[in-house]
Amino acid sequence: MNPLQAKHQAAVAAAQAARADYRAGKVTPTAGVAPGMTQANMIALPRDWAWDFLLYAQRNPKPCPVLDVVEAGAHQTLLAAGADVRTDIPLYRIWRDGQLVDEVTDATPFYAEHGGLVTFLIGCSFTFETPLQQAGIEVRHITDGSNVAMYTTNRACRSAGRLRGNMVVSMRPIAADRVSDACLISGRFPSVHGAPVHVGDPAAIGIADIGCPDFGDPVRIEPGEVPVFWACGVTPQAAVMASGVPFAVTHAPGHMFITDVPDEHYHV
Amino acid sequence: MNPLQAKHQAAVAAAQAARADYRAGKVTPTAGVAPGMTQANMIALPRDWAWDFLLYAQRNPKPCPVLDVVEAGAHQTLLAAGADVRTDIPLYRIWRDGQLVDEVTDATPFYAEHGGLVTFLIGCSFTFETPLQQAGIEVRHITDGSNVAMYTTNRACRSAGRLRGNMVVSMRPIAADRVSDACLISGRFPSVHGAPVHVGDPAAIGIADIGCPDFGDPVRIEPGEVPVFWACGVTPQAAVMASGVPFAVTHAPGHMFITDVPDEHYHV
Repeated sequence: MNPLQAKHQAAVAAAQAARADYRAGKVTPTAGVAPGMTQANMIALPRDWAWDFLLYAQRNPKPCPVLDVVEAGAHQTLLAAGADVRTDIPLYRIWRDGQLVDEVTDATPFYAEHGGLVTFLIGCSFTFETPLQQAGIEVRHITDGSNVAMYTTNRACRSAGRLRGNMVVSMRPIAADRVSDACLISGRFPSVHGAPVHVGDPAAIGIADIGCPDFGDPVRIEPGEVPVFWACGVTPQAAVMASGVPFAVTHAPGHMFITDVPDEHYHV
Repeated sequence: MNPLQAKHQAAVAAAQAARADYRAGKVTPTAGVAPGMTQANMIALPRDWAWDFLLYAQRNPKPCPVLDVVEAGAHQTLLAAGADVRTDIPLYRIWRDGQLVDEVTDATPFYAEHGGLVTFLIGCSFTFETPLQQAGIEVRHITDGSNVAMYTTNRACRSAGRLRGNMVVSMRPIAADRVSDACLISGRFPSVHGAPVHVGDPAAIGIADIGCPDFGDPVRIEPGEVPVFWACGVTPQAAVMASGVPFAVTHAPGHMFITDVPDEHYHV
């Protein structure tokens, strides 16, 4: 086996080991875990909301790029051999009538309670963080071992059926002379949020205080750095809240589903 | 107005004029019409098939990249101001129980007959033909004023619900020393089929006779040229046939819906 093959096998093994840890109950944000393996956001909805959601995703492909759909009654995905979407995410959120009511490490009982949940796995900007770092661009929340900072913006998504809501973004501070590189590199991953949706002034997209993210952790911005904002896969959770969806299971922000698919798979 | 703005406005005007001609009954393949404006495949299905189809498209994004969904009862699309999806395509096909039963220039009566058709507009490889030509790569069917050649392959799509079928491809003969350029250029348009799915031997993907396309016109291949195959938006029609869908309206192959969206919009 050549070194690149060995590296790939090690990455797949790291993804499998992480999923096994999460299945066993370990809770941790997944940024920087199993580097090189695609991570995914998750939302599971009752069957009668599935059409509205898939349409919402189609109409808002930057925040909601669908990587796989697991039909009602199934819990496996082509993205990760042997994985179970009900157990292999470190932390799940349970939503009733648009309200967050619980966080759990095992969503199985909730799938059993609502026999017909359809699970959507959605691209995550973590996918292009490895290429950013390989290009010498610091990803601050990885440096600091924290969760990425996420904010609800004032930008309305295109509604679909009963679903509406504003776009959620993730923010990375980027040195001014690397902003262009960060745009180009992430832009080559259009199915995992792609290029930034906003560069600079947080107030222009309705973020009142950059130090107080709506999800995740605050991330320090050093002098000479520009806050750069990418569409975020937490957007479906904002839609759940804004639309009063009767029942949903999602991942907890920053606590993603780790797949066996190399980031390169989404590189165009 | 600067020359580029003027060129854009002329292209939009050409798209609008073409749609008006088709609405009035003109029938012609659309390759090379309104250059620089995105063209789209179309399929309209009864409401109870819409979920299966949107899932089929999500699972087969190379042949079925969805650009817009027009919900039941509506006939307008954000992709083209003032257009009506029932009338503005030059030629429609009517399908019953998986069989082609008619070709018409106005689909309005069929929408009326089946009150709840949902219309899907799907990316078309014509979108990257302008960039190919701008790079000096000849697009033979445009040179010859014919329809592009399309073939049903032996490659199964991922099924969804009641929908299954094989991938349909379009073929362009490319000079051997430009094949790489053609891959790179089209690959930068991932939401309109992107890079080729096959280069070279037609038999390897189940095409017995390259001179006898399943859809469109035969296209001559000159010495030194390689047949290059792209995923094609006629794939949904193959699924209609293979799955015995009870009712569908589609565009006729090569007779596309011309939008007001510049090709560049889909460039990453």
